[in-house]
Amino acid sequence: MATLFKDVLMLDGDRKRADRGHILVSKGRIQSLMDVSATPPAADKVVEGGGRMAVLPGFVNAHTHAAMVLLRGLGEEAPLMEWLQKKIWPVEAKLTPEHIYRGTASAILEMLATGTTCFADMYFEMDGVAQASLDAGIRCALCRGITDGVAGPDGERKIEASIRDGLRLFEKWHGREGLLTVQLGPHAPYTVPLDDMKKIVALARERGVGIHFHFMETEWETDYIRRELNMTPDDYLRETGVLDTVGTTLAHGVWMDPDRADDLDMSKVTIVHCPQSNLKLGSGVMPLDRWLDINVGLALGTDGASSNNRLDMWGEMRSAALLHKGVTRNPTSVPALDVLRMATFEGARAFGFVNKGLIREGWMADLVLVDLDQPHYVGVNEDNLAAAIVYAGSSADVRGTMVNGKWLYLNGAWPTLDRDEILAKAREARGAITA
Amino acid sequence: MATLFKDVLMLDGDRKRADRGHILVSKGRIQSLMDVSATPPAADKVVEGGGRMAVLPGFVNAHTHAAMVLLRGLGEEAPLMEWLQKKIWPVEAKLTPEHIYRGTASAILEMLATGTTCFADMYFEMDGVAQASLDAGIRCALCRGITDGVAGPDGERKIEASIRDGLRLFEKWHGREGLLTVQLGPHAPYTVPLDDMKKIVALARERGVGIHFHFMETEWETDYIRRELNMTPDDYLRETGVLDTVGTTLAHGVWMDPDRADDLDMSKVTIVHCPQSNLKLGSGVMPLDRWLDINVGLALGTDGASSNNRLDMWGEMRSAALLHKGVTRNPTSVPALDVLRMATFEGARAFGFVNKGLIREGWMADLVLVDLDQPHYVGVNEDNLAAAIVYAGSSADVRGTMVNGKWLYLNGAWPTLDRDEILAKAREARGAITA
Repeated sequence: MATLFKDVLMLDGDRKRADRGHILVSKGRIQSLMDVSATPPAADKVVEGGGRMAVLPGFVNAHTHAAMVLLRGLGEEAPLMEWLQKKIWPVEAKLTPEHIYRGTASAILEMLATGTTCFADMYFEMDGVAQASLDAGIRCALCRGITDGVAGPDGERKIEASIRDGLRLFEKWHGREGLLTVQLGPHAPYTVPLDDMKKIVALARERGVGIHFHFMETEWETDYIRRELNMTPDDYLRETGVLDTVGTTLAHGVWMDPDRADDLDMSKVTIVHCPQSNLKLGSGVMPLDRWLDINVGLALGTDGASSNNRLDMWGEMRSAALLHKGVTRNPTSVPALDVLRMATFEGARAFGFVNKGLIREGWMADLVLVDLDQPHYVGVNEDNLAAAIVYAGSSADVRGTMVNGKWLYLNGAWPTLDRDEILAKAREARGAITA
Repeated sequence: MATLFKDVLMLDGDRKRADRGHILVSKGRIQSLMDVSATPPAADKVVEGGGRMAVLPGFVNAHTHAAMVLLRGLGEEAPLMEWLQKKIWPVEAKLTPEHIYRGTASAILEMLATGTTCFADMYFEMDGVAQASLDAGIRCALCRGITDGVAGPDGERKIEASIRDGLRLFEKWHGREGLLTVQLGPHAPYTVPLDDMKKIVALARERGVGIHFHFMETEWETDYIRRELNMTPDDYLRETGVLDTVGTTLAHGVWMDPDRADDLDMSKVTIVHCPQSNLKLGSGVMPLDRWLDINVGLALGTDGASSNNRLDMWGEMRSAALLHKGVTRNPTSVPALDVLRMATFEGARAFGFVNKGLIREGWMADLVLVDLDQPHYVGVNEDNLAAAIVYAGSSADVRGTMVNGKWLYLNGAWPTLDRDEILAKAREARGAITA
């Protein structure tokens, strides 16, 4: 089935200027891009843009914990450790595989409605995340969060089982239906012993698996790495080997120092900026403006809904674009187009998705349809569309979200999903874990 | 005509906890509030909440320049003075009274769709702003921006004419249809000579008019006041007399020092925090967390759409609640409920609107209807609604906006306004001023 986007403004992170034209989608791909002056071909479905619709690449939420939607709002406005120890961890301990599936399905509703076509998820019981993604038809880069822990009854260290589970997930789900990729997810330097981290990296290199972990989210981690491991954060990156995998994603990086990056080859690394979560938890402000000058991948993520509390990449784009201008007192820093690129192509690339995240012929049709026929877009044109989207737009403008050429969200409905059932089950799960 | 909100969660900035019940609106007012267990009375129109709708007081955008929607996106990402001198001022010079009316009407569409029931506007040719507000039925606190300038052909200083126009507006529009209040709007300490500021304050006191001006938006103003006026910012407040009017609103206050406020009686003053505009223009971060401990009014505003670029109070609430947690590294600072109060009641009070901004029997029915039957509100209840609105909600959740008991926005339509005509005229105006 072919879908024609007729007379739309098309924009992605690689275009300085939007193009006005037609997009023909079929067999899951962007088959052709035409200038608006061309006669558009026939198609089964036609989206009449009338020059007042924009088509963007789908957003890639490059760091989240989707099922945490079930924990949203717990321990609100509490200090960080109290929040984790009293509110989050005890409730997480109650989560069953069924809860993870249900929570993820609910999170997917939310992400699709806000234009996200791919999310990177680190949590546990990840089979439910994989299955919920396939059921919806959304792309997902998943990893099991690997942490240390007490030995099991058989004497095996918990982390060994956790690593094994991570590799099992890779074997089982990586590449499935062209929708999934799987990474190894050593949770963080302070939850994974150094030797285990090195072992995980060695396994990742050996099998060609990517790595995704939390790094330097809070200032405290600098002290931890210095005190406990007797190294600097950049020593850590160098000595563990994470700079040389098929792809390493560092979530947060708030306290990484861009000045130290000169001595490191960061070309295989993507740092995922999570501005709103970092603000909400009081972690600080990542120096994005300075990272933009360095040869490193930069993507955007919401983090989990328990520390954001939205899974809305428009909010993340807006925060990334505004926050650094204010904090550095430089209104020229962090341009809108860079932020759009972070929110789309850079996220897809980080997790090994190829031909996704830009609007190019032959690339996969992971697209968002945006309604520009609204008061806040008066005056929008090819030259200012990126700024209009990032500074004036919001997820309320999303009319449709498509993955592999298939509508997963369209005009307020989710064609592949039973919204009411998903919400009912999510509420039930929420009730059970907070009872 | 009576409207019944049946089985809704009602919340305002004075309630620690939402109440579940019914709200009867008639003759423009909240006639009665009932517990959910009570049998609701008959009404002409019934909004079936089913426990999954929230009713909040309408938002008060306490500092904006509505007609600047026509200038949105001009000079994006430019340094501040270049933005003003090359992009904003030359275009503003082309604005006609008709443009001001058209731009304001378009801004009103946008504000109503995002739940704003009242806005405070400082600009010029303010008759158009007043008329557009009355035509829509929205509340507006308006003032003419009074600035210095060259003498006119009759030898009169421009500022004299500007003050006279401000007073004329007060006589003409103040109190009209219960929708409008008028203030005097001396633009800022650096655009209004000190003697004129004192004269304006004297006039304001004499006639019982409020004052609204920009104060300490940028760091540069501290130097200006010290160098040019040989005083400190708090001297300025004391010596001009602005602390003792019927109500003084200071927009921005980014560089005001809360530690200096101990010696000042700020009880008649409201500072309007405009977090997103301050970030976007690189002005800095106002220390809101510290002001919350001081006896001063605190409201929220978007500023003009040329420096935000949205007129969406949900975004402002979210930014106010997240930004300070991150910058002060304290996740317990700036609670959601304080932010909701700033965005509603405190704004209304600042501009002399009485019985507005809380959900109380007898108060005016300026209300927003919010749809909680959505994935991001799973788990919401009476205890966590304020946090859910501020941290998880967005303007996409607004189903209706009511002023004086009359729907001005409902399910995507504006019953009192011709949306298509307003947009067409706004586009025409935009074209004319940017040609």
